Amino acid sequence: MAERAALEELVRLQGERVRGLKQQKASTEQIEEEVAKLLKLKAQLGPDESKQKFVLKTPKGTRDYSPRQMAVREKVFDVIIRCFKRHGAEVIDTPVFELKDFDIAGQFDPMIPDAECLKIMCEILSSLQIGDFLVKVNDRRILDGMFAICGVPDSKFRTICSSVDKLDKVSWEEVKNEMVGEKGLAPEVADHIGDYVQQHGGVSLVEQLLQDPKLSQSKQALEGLGDLKLLFEYLTLFGIADKISFDLSLARGLDYYTGVIYEAVLLQTPTGAGEEPLGVGSVAAGGRYDGLVGMFDPKGRKVPCVGLSIGVERIFSIVEQRLEALEEKVRTTETQVLVASAQKKLLEERLKLVSELWDAGIKAELLYKKNPKLLNQLQYCEEAGIPLVAIIGEQELKEGVIKLRSVASREEVDVRREDLVEEIRRRTSQPLCIC
Amino acid sequence: MAERAALEELVRLQGERVRGLKQQKASTEQIEEEVAKLLKLKAQLGPDESKQKFVLKTPKGTRDYSPRQMAVREKVFDVIIRCFKRHGAEVIDTPVFELKDFDIAGQFDPMIPDAECLKIMCEILSSLQIGDFLVKVNDRRILDGMFAICGVPDSKFRTICSSVDKLDKVSWEEVKNEMVGEKGLAPEVADHIGDYVQQHGGVSLVEQLLQDPKLSQSKQALEGLGDLKLLFEYLTLFGIADKISFDLSLARGLDYYTGVIYEAVLLQTPTGAGEEPLGVGSVAAGGRYDGLVGMFDPKGRKVPCVGLSIGVERIFSIVEQRLEALEEKVRTTETQVLVASAQKKLLEERLKLVSELWDAGIKAELLYKKNPKLLNQLQYCEEAGIPLVAIIGEQELKEGVIKLRSVASREEVDVRREDLVEEIRRRTSQPLCIC
Repeated sequence: MAERAALEELVRLQGERVRGLKQQKASTEQIEEEVAKLLKLKAQLGPDESKQKFVLKTPKGTRDYSPRQMAVREKVFDVIIRCFKRHGAEVIDTPVFELKDFDIAGQFDPMIPDAECLKIMCEILSSLQIGDFLVKVNDRRILDGMFAICGVPDSKFRTICSSVDKLDKVSWEEVKNEMVGEKGLAPEVADHIGDYVQQHGGVSLVEQLLQDPKLSQSKQALEGLGDLKLLFEYLTLFGIADKISFDLSLARGLDYYTGVIYEAVLLQTPTGAGEEPLGVGSVAAGGRYDGLVGMFDPKGRKVPCVGLSIGVERIFSIVEQRLEALEEKVRTTETQVLVASAQKKLLEERLKLVSELWDAGIKAELLYKKNPKLLNQLQYCEEAGIPLVAIIGEQELKEGVIKLRSVASREEVDVRREDLVEEIRRRTSQPLCIC
Repeated sequence: MAERAALEELVRLQGERVRGLKQQKASTEQIEEEVAKLLKLKAQLGPDESKQKFVLKTPKGTRDYSPRQMAVREKVFDVIIRCFKRHGAEVIDTPVFELKDFDIAGQFDPMIPDAECLKIMCEILSSLQIGDFLVKVNDRRILDGMFAICGVPDSKFRTICSSVDKLDKVSWEEVKNEMVGEKGLAPEVADHIGDYVQQHGGVSLVEQLLQDPKLSQSKQALEGLGDLKLLFEYLTLFGIADKISFDLSLARGLDYYTGVIYEAVLLQTPTGAGEEPLGVGSVAAGGRYDGLVGMFDPKGRKVPCVGLSIGVERIFSIVEQRLEALEEKVRTTETQVLVASAQKKLLEERLKLVSELWDAGIKAELLYKKNPKLLNQLQYCEEAGIPLVAIIGEQELKEGVIKLRSVASREEVDVRREDLVEEIRRRTSQPLCIC
């Protein structure tokens, strides 16, 4: 589902108009590949039945993902969607969300929505359990102010930004060489930038820079630093300040963002035994882009907007690779219990019981055989990862009980039929965990 | 999301290879429209930013559904997906499901999976609460046998089938005129068919026809009737026999199905006050198509397959029209509680509390204002349909309580802060209902 795949990079909170923009932007890229992909597929298929048969012999190839992959994707989306809904988000077009319609400007006070975006980011990354992460934070205005007071000519702002943004991958020396050698920046200007962009820390760094004799000369920088100080107060109240790092080298998408910018990176790739280390880069990002919208607003009004996006495709591959490394068996169904029989001629009883369980909302299965061997039924549970077996036998029927067996421990207990649903619920209720 | 729309008609349980076939079929049609649609959109957009602006001024147009429609769709899908998962279905490509991989033939005994398909159909239609429904059941072999003993020439089988299938819309006289007048069937043959196809009922009709001197001469018909008798036994055990009607005029997709066929129809359109009656026809259908797969199997093996599909687009429009008629307010978010403050200077306390609630899994919001008026906060709840307000005031903070207000009843009670999460859960826990 290519259209979905394109949207998977667009899980975000944002204002009405900008969502329009974002979706549109996505569409343009997506349409190119989509058209190409579909025309190719169309050519493969051909218009007539006979050609189809070739494809039909390999139906697996017509499936986007394996059931295992689908199960992982479903669980990752479940975590993300739960989190957005917890924050009152509205589904625009799964998995695209909108928090509130930000239409009348000034409906909010500074940094409150920005703080919630970071909270959402942290909640999602924590619940996905893909390892330790850090959210780098910076502000467009701080970068602009810093470049100005360091003496970067306006014409070089953007190109110097892109050099600075490489600091998470390469050394300062390499970045400096690029600035001076390739981009013709004066060495002392580069060094001056270096003094700033190599710093990162918490709110104390914000306060320190507010006192910085040079940087404090820039009105822009002071605005940005002031907002970051406020942001950190809110992040502390949200209990996530320890996950946030003010990093002056973060300089992403500056022709796009107008204020606070953030990017979440995994601190360690979750490598299991014998697993290839995985270069995942950033797994989530976002920021504020207030000015932008005015461009498209007939009256040129400034519409405040914040957004965040989760790189779910990357997260899928991390989770999948991790599960493989751990040799974790991914369940592709959610069946809680298999209704089985110990003797022959009990199909009717199995059908009656499984129907009772379905009607009570229990996820239940039975084998489609009239007289399946108990061993085969237990084996099926092992393979499908079904945790419980409800075994009917003549003796149990006489006594009005069901033998409930735990597949893992192989323990069996007799449960009164009227208590069976509750007992299954009790035993299979567990917090959502994706691995 | 055209690709999704195409899949929405494909919610089904079936064997590996046929799913391949079905998806392939879907793809071919879907690729045509998809390519057309995307090329059109691409033309609109044009390659350059400037052209985009035109589109950006009407972002609404870039949205497939309104939040209200999305909410309805989400809830309908939720009901369907819950039901399929309850039956141990595996997600192939939401909303396409597979029950078990039916790969080694003969893994099942007759009519058990068929009965489960009908059970699933009934569970979904009941939980959707879209009004009374009836599932018509027939069998391809009974129709073939019936036509044979009535003296329909093989060459006319299919065309006579399509006439018979119209009986749910037009009178027998009209159907007969078509058979005799247009399709050149002998009047007495038509009358003979009429005696059968105008009958419908429960298992008693099956038993009656098993004794039918003429029909019982057809080996095919006897097989079909025998299986239907067994099917009704299982449907009785599943508690849905009263929803099922054996209807000899049901003759859908006969060049496709090989055994039992079924089709669910709404008995009455759920018309509210002043609502236009809605012609919805069948809302779900399915059947058995064993032979079919051999065509695509290299070794020509017969692979047993049953399938069912839910007409979700029809169901969406029924639910939407119904909600409009009832003037029901559809919530587009799931927020349980708004964290509000009674006095100024309580933003920090609001942020702390909303964060506590998020961390406890409660769906909570707050207004992004530093000092919002209580009236505005209550008004926001009314508009957004948020049922509860957790109000912080200086007095409450001193006493370690939160004032919990029901938006509907306007009742307020003081809840100990440590009991707040439980109290909110208790008050907002309710069974899923789509209207």
